[in-house]
Parts: sequence; structure tokens; C-alpha cells
Amino acid sequence: MFHSTSSIVRSALTSNIKMSSSATRSLTTAKSIIYSTHGEPKDVIKVHTYTIKEPEDNEIVLKTLAFPINPSDINQLEGVYPSKPEKTLQYNTTEPSAIAGNEGLFEVFKTGPGVSSKFQIGDRVVPIFANTGTWTSHNIIKEDQLIKLPKDLSIVKGATIGVNPATAYQLVNNYGLIKGDWLIQNAGTSAVSQMVSQIAKTKGINVISVIRDRDDFDAVAERLTSQGATKVISESQNGDRDVGKELAKLTGGNIKLALNSVGGKSSASIARKLAPGSKIITYGGMSKQPVTFPTSLFIFKNIQALGYWVTENTKADPAGKVKDTEEIVKLYQSGQLKELEVVESVWKLDEFSDEQVRDLIVKGLENSSKGKQLIKIE
Amino acid sequence: MFHSTSSIVRSALTSNIKMSSSATRSLTTAKSIIYSTHGEPKDVIKVHTYTIKEPEDNEIVLKTLAFPINPSDINQLEGVYPSKPEKTLQYNTTEPSAIAGNEGLFEVFKTGPGVSSKFQIGDRVVPIFANTGTWTSHNIIKEDQLIKLPKDLSIVKGATIGVNPATAYQLVNNYGLIKGDWLIQNAGTSAVSQMVSQIAKTKGINVISVIRDRDDFDAVAERLTSQGATKVISESQNGDRDVGKELAKLTGGNIKLALNSVGGKSSASIARKLAPGSKIITYGGMSKQPVTFPTSLFIFKNIQALGYWVTENTKADPAGKVKDTEEIVKLYQSGQLKELEVVESVWKLDEFSDEQVRDLIVKGLENSSKGKQLIKIE
Repeated sequence: MFHSTSSIVRSALTSNIKMSSSATRSLTTAKSIIYSTHGEPKDVIKVHTYTIKEPEDNEIVLKTLAFPINPSDINQLEGVYPSKPEKTLQYNTTEPSAIAGNEGLFEVFKTGPGVSSKFQIGDRVVPIFANTGTWTSHNIIKEDQLIKLPKDLSIVKGATIGVNPATAYQLVNNYGLIKGDWLIQNAGTSAVSQMVSQIAKTKGINVISVIRDRDDFDAVAERLTSQGATKVISESQNGDRDVGKELAKLTGGNIKLALNSVGGKSSASIARKLAPGSKIITYGGMSKQPVTFPTSLFIFKNIQALGYWVTENTKADPAGKVKDTEEIVKLYQSGQLKELEVVESVWKLDEFSDEQVRDLIVKGLENSSKGKQLIKIE
Repeated sequence: MFHSTSSIVRSALTSNIKMSSSATRSLTTAKSIIYSTHGEPKDVIKVHTYTIKEPEDNEIVLKTLAFPINPSDINQLEGVYPSKPEKTLQYNTTEPSAIAGNEGLFEVFKTGPGVSSKFQIGDRVVPIFANTGTWTSHNIIKEDQLIKLPKDLSIVKGATIGVNPATAYQLVNNYGLIKGDWLIQNAGTSAVSQMVSQIAKTKGINVISVIRDRDDFDAVAERLTSQGATKVISESQNGDRDVGKELAKLTGGNIKLALNSVGGKSSASIARKLAPGSKIITYGGMSKQPVTFPTSLFIFKNIQALGYWVTENTKADPAGKVKDTEEIVKLYQSGQLKELEVVESVWKLDEFSDEQVRDLIVKGLENSSKGKQLIKIE
């Protein structure tokens, strides 16, 4: 009998198609909050349902447990955030789209054939990087882009570990502070600042927290000092020269780091209190005013003004992010770091219509100025 | 005969006294501009005459050829400059005093017995460090605190080599710029900025100089480009977004360093033009306004805002200052760097009364806002 080459080729092709078809056969149905354009978040988000295929190689299919709505997620939807995911057709949309959200806690649902035994079904993981898309029921992420968390860490702690605690941890640890040093920070009541105080306390680093003037100053100051702040002052005290002299005495002129998330006069006032050669790190701009520094601080005191952004820092040093996340887990487990305060809502996956899912997210977006919103998926 | 021990001791003591008297015998008479308190410069300076002794060990007695009146000298007299010499009784004053001035060209007048053969009578030298006192007919400085200059370098170049050209040279060279890079600077017509452009040109570094809006903009821009500036823009163009886009195109987004000696809005506008991860160096504050930066530059563009001060840089790296001074001499000798423009006055050492010397200095102080004053001693 005569076998033509073409028939062998044909047979191989058929086999390939079969293999390919097997590899991409559907695993589950996913529902994601996607966007293809930027603008007012509630106008650009859509609820999209599609099929998730079997994971290949070192891919892991993940089921989402919870995700927060962060201010940066909103800015990303608005198109005013410099970090954004590529929009693709991989979710079977007609227009290139991306899944919203940058932070979230996942459960391993199915592992690809090349995934190491480190990851087992039911394990809890968070993405290392931003832009993976977390406002979704499921996602597919490669194993080398995931950090495994212990199963007994609370859902809130896990779902919010990548941005606020990571920022606080790296701000305290990345600038060479040692036991006995002082740092000064404005926006002392913010989530990050409160975590900075707690983490600094574990290292014997003293913290001066500057908070806005308010009627219940003493009560707030007491709460912050009980958490770890060594000293709490108001913004008007921050701008007062005599208070500056008192703090110089209290600290022995040993304020080695300033953390600025406010800008304007507040940034100048915390910078003035620094020891020569110290750094002031800007990581936020709540006042919406530009950062301001007296010229003499640069020339005569050699103050260095730098920026910090957890997204970029993670890209530059992913291994550092993994290590720091593991340290944050330990701080949570030892009780040295308090869980972030969040407002929880539940997305009932099997019950909610697309309209209900959309309403839930829109309500979360609207309320996000009142407190960190967390969506749990059940 | 009997020699008592005490007579031997007495003899040794006498000999010691003789030696000491010989070592401290007077060499010449000096006249210095001194001050013992701070305030309005013309009110605190005094002309003081005293005896200079023979140099010991590695001391060199110097005769002054010329010294400039720098703004920092004035601020030092006012007491508002963070660098100041110790006030001592070494000039035989009744109150602890210091000699004014921080820069000047000297001639070797007499070398101490331990001075190396590198320094010969008649050699020209400048002090490495600030605070040695240069508004004086003579001074005594140890050899390791002097930089030898070639005799054929002009008196103006020598007497002003330590501050403005050193600042310009280190600003261009200390921040990792390479051929083809761009830098942007404000105060484009200042003495330092003009030198920055000339030095940058020798290294193939492109310069954008921002100058104040003025009627003769084109003529000034032409003069600055002929010296080395690649492009000259006005402060209103500096604040214009469209100009920013044009410059981004022109430079290929390759502006790696910003030099700020103005502050306020101007500092924000030059910082905005920087490539991600670049540095803005503040070394002056002509506008008297604080330095201002958009928050986003720190967080999302990782811009680093640092300070530069030649005085501190010299203390931190004296060998670098010596090396850089030698490089500046080469640039002067090759004609690549133009001599600073100064207004000269002459102090006739053998003719002027103390009153006349004082008047000369007071006139220099008064005129120093109109141009750099240089006092030559003849």
C-alpha cells in the first residue's frame, strides 16, 4: 500500500486540531467587570459573561473571593492613572477590553499541567502585579505572578494586602531607618499612615503623625498613639516654629524620614523638621496642591525629595514584593498589624443578574469616598 | 667641677625659649577685612592690621592677588549663611574675629620648613575650602588645603575659579549625563548657567536654557546659543504645554537633568519636562519662592529632587574639587570656557589708608548686585 506524504500531513494536522480543541475546551463560565474606553466609571464598565478554558502550561484558573475598590482603580477607569492594563480580545469581546481592578484575593480553581505542586486547588493567592484584573468571578494567571497566602488569613486581609499594607511596609523599611530613628508623616489618620505607625512600632522606630485640625483632636490623637504613633500634632502645630523647636528637642534632631501624602504647606513643614541629609518621600497628594519645599532645605540641608509608588516598585523588584507580603502576613498573624477597615458588600454569583452586579459595583464606586469598599463573591 | 641638674634644665629651657621666639618672629605686616559680629556688612567689617609670623611646618604664607565679593560672602557677614569660619584670636584682635571672604587668588610668599617642593615662592594658589578668609593682604594656609594654578591663568580666572565654574562643572558632570543627553536649566543668563552651557557643549550634552521674558529676547537667546545652549526659551514658553510637547519631540524625551536656581513655578515647569527617573538639582533660589513640584512627578515619574552646594560638596570630596579645578583650568586654557565678567577695583596696599580700604570694600558690597565685584591688590 502506498501512503502519500500529504495524507500523513493531513493526519498530523487533524491530530493537532484535536489536541488544540482539547486544550482549549471550556472549564467554567466567568463574569467580569470590563471596560473598553475610559470616562466616568459607571458609564464605561460593563458586565461581561464568557467561557474560561482549561489552563495550559503554568497557568492557574482562579476563583475570586473578594476585591476592594481602590481610588487608583477609579482613576484607571477614568483614564487619568498612568498604569493601565492592555486591552485585548481574550475575553471574547467585540472591542479590545480589560478587566477592572488591581487587587483581590483568589482561590486556586484549576492548575495547568506545568504548575508546580506548591499550588493546590483551594489555595489562596494574590497577584504580584497590578493590572491583572480583579473585578471578576474568575481569572487566569501564571503561577509565577502569584503570591500564596495562608488559608487562615482573613478574606479582608488577603484581598487588601497588595496596596495599602505593602505601601506602608515598604515606606518604613526601604529607606534605611534603624531602631531609635524618627519619621514624620502627614495625613496621620489615613489607612496607610496608621499602618506605617504600627509597622514602625514593631521596629522601634518613632513616629510623629500630623493630622488635620479638628474638634476631637485629643480622642483621635489618643487612638493613633495607642496604635503606635509616638507623637501626634495638628497641621497648625506642624506650621508653628516653636513646636518645631520642641520636636527637635524631643527627637534629638533625629527625624530621618518624612512621608508626604498631602502636598502644599504640609509637605514643606514636615520637610523642615528633617535632619540634614534625610529623605522626604511623596506617595500621595490629598490636598491636590503641588509639593512645596523651602529652597534652603535642598542646598544647605541636602534633603532629598523622592517619590514612592507601590505599582512601580513591584515592577522594579517583584521578589521584594513577595518577601514583603510574607512579612506583612506575619505581622497580621502576630496581631501587630490591624486589619484594614472596609465596608463589605456581597456579590451572589449564582443569583445576581448582570444588572444587579452592575448596581453593586456602581454603589461601591459611589461610596468609596466614605470608606474602603470590599466586594465579596459568594 | 660640679654641674647641677637644675642648671642643665635651665639651659635647655632658655634654648627652647630662643627656638620658639625664632619660630614666631614676624615676617610681614598684614591687613585684613575682619568681623567679630554679624549684621549689615558695612557695619560689621573692620580693617585690621597685624603681624604675620614665619610659617611653621607645612604652613605657607600667602600674598593675596585678588578676591571677588560673592553673594554668599555677604550672607555670611549678615549671619544668614549656614557655612561660617570659626572666630579666633589668632589675628591679635581683642574679640574673637574671622577674616571675610571665601574665594581668592594667592601668591606663595614664604613656605614653612615642612612644605613640599611642589610649592615655590611666586606660585599661584587658591584655597580648596571655603572659610579660609580671602579679603586680606596675606594669609597663612597649610599646603594640603591649597590648589596650585598655572601662572599664566589670568587673575580673574584664578580668583573666581572656586565657586561659579566649580558649581557649573560639577552640575554638568556629577549626575551621570552622557553625550547626546539633554539638560534643562532656568536662570539661563546667570554666570553659572552660562558656564553650564559651555561645559555641556564640550561633552556633547544638549542644553535648554530658560530665561525671563524680555524685550531683547532674540538677541540674548542668540548670545546664549553661540556660547553653547542648544535651545533658549522664555519663562512663559516654559509654562506652556504646547512648547513642552515640541521640546519632547525635539529632545526625543531625553531630558535627563534639570538645574534649578529660581524656584516657584519655574522649577515645576522644568521638572515637568524631565524623562522618568531623572533628577532636578536645586542650587539657588533667585525668585525667593519655595521650590514647587507637581505631586505626580514624584509618584508616577520617579523624579528625584536633590540639592547641590559647592561648599558642602568640597567638604565631602576635597580630592574631587582639586581634580575638577584642574579640569576647569584646562577648559580655560583651551578657550572652551569664557572668563567670568567682573567689575574690577584696585586696593593699593602701600598707599591706601584703612579708611580707603574700608570705602573700597563698602563700595564693592553696594555694587555687587550690579555685577560680580573683584578687588585686585597691587
